[in-house]
Amino acid sequence: MKFEKLALIGCGLMGGSFALALKQAQLVRHVTGFSASEATRQKAFALGVIDSIAESAAQAVQGADLVLVAVPVRAAHLTFAAIAPALSPNALLMDVGSTKADVVAAARATLGERLPCFVPAHPIAGKEVAGVEHADADLYQNRQLILTPLPSNGLRKIAQAHDVWEAIGSQVITLTPELHDATFAAVSHLPHLVAFALINAIAQQPKGADYLSMAGPGFRDFSRIAASDPAVWRDILLANRQQVLHQSALMRKALDDLETAMTEGQADTLEQLIAQASHTRAQWRLGSGVADADS
Amino acid sequence: MKFEKLALIGCGLMGGSFALALKQAQLVRHVTGFSASEATRQKAFALGVIDSIAESAAQAVQGADLVLVAVPVRAAHLTFAAIAPALSPNALLMDVGSTKADVVAAARATLGERLPCFVPAHPIAGKEVAGVEHADADLYQNRQLILTPLPSNGLRKIAQAHDVWEAIGSQVITLTPELHDATFAAVSHLPHLVAFALINAIAQQPKGADYLSMAGPGFRDFSRIAASDPAVWRDILLANRQQVLHQSALMRKALDDLETAMTEGQADTLEQLIAQASHTRAQWRLGSGVADADS
Repeated sequence: MKFEKLALIGCGLMGGSFALALKQAQLVRHVTGFSASEATRQKAFALGVIDSIAESAAQAVQGADLVLVAVPVRAAHLTFAAIAPALSPNALLMDVGSTKADVVAAARATLGERLPCFVPAHPIAGKEVAGVEHADADLYQNRQLILTPLPSNGLRKIAQAHDVWEAIGSQVITLTPELHDATFAAVSHLPHLVAFALINAIAQQPKGADYLSMAGPGFRDFSRIAASDPAVWRDILLANRQQVLHQSALMRKALDDLETAMTEGQADTLEQLIAQASHTRAQWRLGSGVADADS
Repeated sequence: MKFEKLALIGCGLMGGSFALALKQAQLVRHVTGFSASEATRQKAFALGVIDSIAESAAQAVQGADLVLVAVPVRAAHLTFAAIAPALSPNALLMDVGSTKADVVAAARATLGERLPCFVPAHPIAGKEVAGVEHADADLYQNRQLILTPLPSNGLRKIAQAHDVWEAIGSQVITLTPELHDATFAAVSHLPHLVAFALINAIAQQPKGADYLSMAGPGFRDFSRIAASDPAVWRDILLANRQQVLHQSALMRKALDDLETAMTEGQADTLEQLIAQASHTRAQWRLGSGVADADS
């Protein structure tokens, strides 16, 4: 498996890292890139992430046998519409969006007879810093990658998508778009939402800056995801809002239980609730989904 | 500054790390230890964390010029009561509790004329694993340490407490017990409470285990503190419940703001709220309280 030309639509952290990973694995001959921002295009080129600059998304995909759309999820619709007419019927088209039902709907609405080219993908990887300057050839190494294939994808197309991600070190799991969105509402979107809320709640207090100046390593790790890219997370929270709000309601209920035990001084109940959480978290291992899927 | 004898009451992660740090810095000639659990006492001795085993807290402090009480905060009252009669008038007595107003109240109620010996301390350091087997001589290196001195502490006693922690690598900040508890309700106790709630909310769902198996590095960091010791955190959340519940209410309000923007599809408002959090967190640096205090 070697690709002649990767078209990268969106030259940010995720897309740039994918291009660098493919280059490092010698899986691609040429990378052309397009980003809405001229400055980003130039930066990606200067950093060697892309080998040529395209003037439009449609131009980028011409003759490309591999296309990665790495834009905030709300921009997927317009991007697909722009590239559909220029897309080669043999191309493998993927995205890296953190939500899948909305991206699949956008693809169905725009890709027409090129729909079978599109294998939706979501790498469970990232950094709290955005931008192509943080792109990293090893970002996807030892990370899980979710594919949510469409009924119209041929088996060969799905296998090809599988192989690309495995070749750059990812462990591939297949889900339906709906199960994907329910899963990541719980384990990713809600934690982000809560981290945003907690930081804002502290910072808005008169002594908030003083409080923050004394925070320790527990706070550092807990709140790292709050530094994520606002445009990316605006789109994710809007696209998956129903599932995220559902998970938030469940979290508030669990918080109620803990707070009731605190208010009423029920030490045993409180310890039990904490022990449940502590035990669950202590048993948890990153990437265990792969082992489960294989077993 | 060199101590003849450190009495360690509570040979867990925090106490054990303090003993190892003092030994590494050659600041203590002999460490004697007492823990409620016989197995813990034996383990601490076998690991070389303590040089001798005391049969009671009172026996441990006899002749000790340095005493560290490192027990869950609710146990501070009984511990102080047990050691007060045996405490040398020249000893420096400190704790490592994550709450201070309650520990100070316990000290006032129990220490009698030995109250001036007690300089309350809270190291902003820890691990998500408990137990003396995880004790680490470098746990307090480059970490902030909060002292909340009492009016009856002499300046020499406070300076001595300051010097011990600085000698093992900590950066010392002085606060009132009340400001300490308000600060850590916001930046430590609430994050723990929320992490417990979120883990419980996910785990209680029918597909919770599947969801958790696919969680990524963002979840890993966000939820690390949920694995903390249940007895320790039961006591902290009960001791500081008023401040923690206040902070939780503020967090729920900030969460309401984000959720309203999601529900009503207000993309700009949502992005603005996320950008606030993202900017605050991106600017934040671990240990910045020291620089502020010095300036």
